[in-house]
Amino acid sequence: MLNILSAGGVSLLITLVGTKFWIKFLEKNAYGQFIRSDGPTAHHVKRGTPTMGGVVLVFAVVMGYFISHAIPPRPFSASGLLLLGLLVGLAIVGFIDDWLKITHAQSLGLNPVAKFSLQVTVGVVFAFFALRFPDWQDVTPASTYLSFLRDVPWLNLGVVGAIIWMVFLISAFSNATNLTDGADGLLTGSAAMVFIAYAVVNIWQISQYCTPLEPSAFNCYEVRNPGDLATIAMALAGGLFGFLWWNARPAKIFLGDTGSLAIGGAVAGLAIMTRTELLAVIIALLFVLEATSVIIQVGFFKVTKGKRLFKMAPLHHHFEMLGWDEVTVVIRFWIIAGLAVMAGMGLFYAEWMVGSRV
Amino acid sequence: MLNILSAGGVSLLITLVGTKFWIKFLEKNAYGQFIRSDGPTAHHVKRGTPTMGGVVLVFAVVMGYFISHAIPPRPFSASGLLLLGLLVGLAIVGFIDDWLKITHAQSLGLNPVAKFSLQVTVGVVFAFFALRFPDWQDVTPASTYLSFLRDVPWLNLGVVGAIIWMVFLISAFSNATNLTDGADGLLTGSAAMVFIAYAVVNIWQISQYCTPLEPSAFNCYEVRNPGDLATIAMALAGGLFGFLWWNARPAKIFLGDTGSLAIGGAVAGLAIMTRTELLAVIIALLFVLEATSVIIQVGFFKVTKGKRLFKMAPLHHHFEMLGWDEVTVVIRFWIIAGLAVMAGMGLFYAEWMVGSRV
Repeated sequence: MLNILSAGGVSLLITLVGTKFWIKFLEKNAYGQFIRSDGPTAHHVKRGTPTMGGVVLVFAVVMGYFISHAIPPRPFSASGLLLLGLLVGLAIVGFIDDWLKITHAQSLGLNPVAKFSLQVTVGVVFAFFALRFPDWQDVTPASTYLSFLRDVPWLNLGVVGAIIWMVFLISAFSNATNLTDGADGLLTGSAAMVFIAYAVVNIWQISQYCTPLEPSAFNCYEVRNPGDLATIAMALAGGLFGFLWWNARPAKIFLGDTGSLAIGGAVAGLAIMTRTELLAVIIALLFVLEATSVIIQVGFFKVTKGKRLFKMAPLHHHFEMLGWDEVTVVIRFWIIAGLAVMAGMGLFYAEWMVGSRV
Repeated sequence: MLNILSAGGVSLLITLVGTKFWIKFLEKNAYGQFIRSDGPTAHHVKRGTPTMGGVVLVFAVVMGYFISHAIPPRPFSASGLLLLGLLVGLAIVGFIDDWLKITHAQSLGLNPVAKFSLQVTVGVVFAFFALRFPDWQDVTPASTYLSFLRDVPWLNLGVVGAIIWMVFLISAFSNATNLTDGADGLLTGSAAMVFIAYAVVNIWQISQYCTPLEPSAFNCYEVRNPGDLATIAMALAGGLFGFLWWNARPAKIFLGDTGSLAIGGAVAGLAIMTRTELLAVIIALLFVLEATSVIIQVGFFKVTKGKRLFKMAPLHHHFEMLGWDEVTVVIRFWIIAGLAVMAGMGLFYAEWMVGSRV
């Protein structure tokens, strides 16, 4: 328990203090964000704001994890290292994208096919290894079952099916968080809530862990290393809170693709390893809605040959176009994100209650 | 469990929909807020914004409580009714204050002595009855002990001492929330977090409830009706989320003293009845800091015969004077509030873990 809090605290301190220096470094080297020229005109003033804040976030999470394992010394776990690998892998993909945008001085970055291929590659590596490393109870970090509040016993996807499903989740969530990251603090604040929820899910799974030593345990969870996953979830939440200090309107720095892809990957990784894949759609509903709005917009545009359903996609731009102040959109979207997180946690707890004898 | 969620849902819907109508009604009758003329000049544009949004909030919480007890029918509890009484009592004090401000067209309202006397009266009535109504295990809604994470066994204050202590907590917290309510969404958002924390504390106390039927229960909590208190805490959180929709910058309506006094009273009441009085200082740290900044400012001014420590008290105005945008202050203060809530919850859980055999 103490290591979960220390990981969160270390990560918080690093982003709170480190982001200030990172901003100065980026400004000195004139590494600013290029804002999409077809976005809301109010956003054009943001041109030049430093990006790649995700570098500090990812560094903070990794440091939070390792320091909390060093004092006092604790072994690393397969699940923890896999989640960190996924996080860092996607952060690197995002970094390449951010870097190309900066050095080529345009808002485009990696071409879509290359970006998607890299995301899929990272996802495949994660999924492949996540089905290995059984513990002494033969539980692997990920399972071949599709999961909602736990593994659905009649939905075994098989090894290949499970890998495809995991890669789909990873690329879907990382693209969704990438799209959500378009208004000051929007992704940072809502992702912090999602990771707090996942820290709680993991802490609950620690306390309701299946073990042959306690056969009385009713309705227990078959998961691997929930304690280590809670450490990373809390490091993410702490790091995001610290980053939000600088990312709150008016943002002094953006997450960039480095941050947004890493965040989405972590959501998918946590959903997979806590066996709550479909529950993640509820907990992280805001990201799902944002991504869906883009899909609907593009589909509608193609079917109707040129009509638009939203004034602009993703969804937050639609409301800005309707005249809502950017910060009003952000706070209202946070409310929606918070309610979705609470609904998801309520469902998770209710399933356990109903299954238990109380 | 279901009734806790339904209370939150009903309250959320009422403030989300009802506040819109309340704003229209207030605007039609020109019941606007008068902004203190010595406040930050940026706040002068807020003159005329409707206030008394707390009326909708308190109505929503009361409806949430009663509807969740009607479908399906469940008996009311002593603790639940006492907390509602405290909430409504302080809301009435706040309403008188708001009303005088509006009708006398100035920012002053009730004179301080009259306001304080009314707060104390409501507090005394609550404290007096909270020590009565023992349940079948002889547990009363409040106890005569001072509490931190639970009652401190060697700190029995006696009946008179306990009443004084409770009245102090109620007037201190309701004044603190009153002071915190000075920037768009600041109190609304941070109070929502505090009440979510109290809903979780209560839900945990339900699951770890002391009962002679289960003598094996280790480290259980001696509290009365945690389930009913969770219902009200969740109704408050839901209602505040719905209200924040309209109260987010640029605020269309303010809580007014009606809302802020009721919120502070509810924090104190929950702290008293969940036996977490000193823990509330951590969970609701933001309110404590805001109140302390005023006390320090006034004390420093008197001692130094005219010098000021902060540019302006309460604290949020100090940072506005330093040039932070109002919304930056609000979001950063929310971060502080959120971290304090998490630290408090961590402590609460850690004490239970250490005390338990795990």
